[in-house]
Amino acid sequence: MAVKEIPLPTKKRMVLLERLLSTYTEPRITSQKIQELTLWSAAVVRRDISLLEGVSGSSAGYKTAELRKALQDLLNAPGTNAKCCIVGLGRLGQFLMYSSELSGSPYEIVAGFDSSVNRTEVLRSSFPLHPTTMLESVIRQEGISYALLTVGPDEAQGIASRLCDAGIKGIVNYTPCVLALPENVAVENVGLLTALENLGVKGGC
Amino acid sequence: MAVKEIPLPTKKRMVLLERLLSTYTEPRITSQKIQELTLWSAAVVRRDISLLEGVSGSSAGYKTAELRKALQDLLNAPGTNAKCCIVGLGRLGQFLMYSSELSGSPYEIVAGFDSSVNRTEVLRSSFPLHPTTMLESVIRQEGISYALLTVGPDEAQGIASRLCDAGIKGIVNYTPCVLALPENVAVENVGLLTALENLGVKGGC
Repeated sequence: MAVKEIPLPTKKRMVLLERLLSTYTEPRITSQKIQELTLWSAAVVRRDISLLEGVSGSSAGYKTAELRKALQDLLNAPGTNAKCCIVGLGRLGQFLMYSSELSGSPYEIVAGFDSSVNRTEVLRSSFPLHPTTMLESVIRQEGISYALLTVGPDEAQGIASRLCDAGIKGIVNYTPCVLALPENVAVENVGLLTALENLGVKGGC
Repeated sequence: MAVKEIPLPTKKRMVLLERLLSTYTEPRITSQKIQELTLWSAAVVRRDISLLEGVSGSSAGYKTAELRKALQDLLNAPGTNAKCCIVGLGRLGQFLMYSSELSGSPYEIVAGFDSSVNRTEVLRSSFPLHPTTMLESVIRQEGISYALLTVGPDEAQGIASRLCDAGIKGIVNYTPCVLALPENVAVENVGLLTALENLGVKGGC
């Protein structure tokens, strides 16, 4: 749909704008106010918003709720309870396990996996932890859509392929590996080296 | 330069392709081989590479070294020793502190900062740790270009503004905050919620 035609830098700004509006309490917001909060130019903001359907601006600004709803629709934000799992419960996996960042969002971590049974038995967590051998069965049973991949580089591609076979829709890849994934599985590469390298190539947002 | 005209999804594939080539030992690589390793279609790969200057393909493929050099030039990869710092030495900051992911890359972490003097004194690290009060002086003295921002949401914008004033060129933002940054400072948003939301909007890569 419409999403396809919108350039990636715009889409990424829209994700951030939706986040911003989630804590914005005024009934209306102007492009100047958005500029003040983000330092994106008001002209860029107005152009981005002009791509949204069903949002009308006036000199008093955009209606906050209307704008947020249009952004959510466009961004395909999951309505409720998009289930996630963590694969790899080392230091980073444990950080994610204890993070409260997703509370209040539609995303929820419902399972963790590690190849060390020692870890899955000893670590305390608010959701069940399983040996990696159970990856496919738990993902199918729970209807898990997204995976946070924090295993070692040697394991990364193998686990990623198993995640795809199990029907996962998207992977947040914390490993430095370039994952070979089928076209219908989304990936967001957030490994440290990739993130630093991406800083050099930014054009838009 | 040329970089500006290349769409973001292509640039992001180029970052990954450069990474892939860094461990590829054959003297030549074909677009089919790249397809096999990444599952990007060979046609997309050829189109991406056609945007690079000074790379010629033949039926035997591209020259690996020539292709990698062209990618590095285009991506503005820092030559040597791009200095980085970590701001915020909680669980995630400590994970980054002990990560070996940057070894062998042009990026090097040379300083850590935390507002708790207890942390900066107790934690062991291969590089110096400082109280956040020293942020500006250490960044200027060491010539630090990049910051990994792992402080709490309440502190994020304040610290980010100080980093910009101190002359930082780019920020890897691990917080869920939408940072207001001047146009000449790059940002890569890798917070968990942002990463998950970005999975929904991917079009290209």
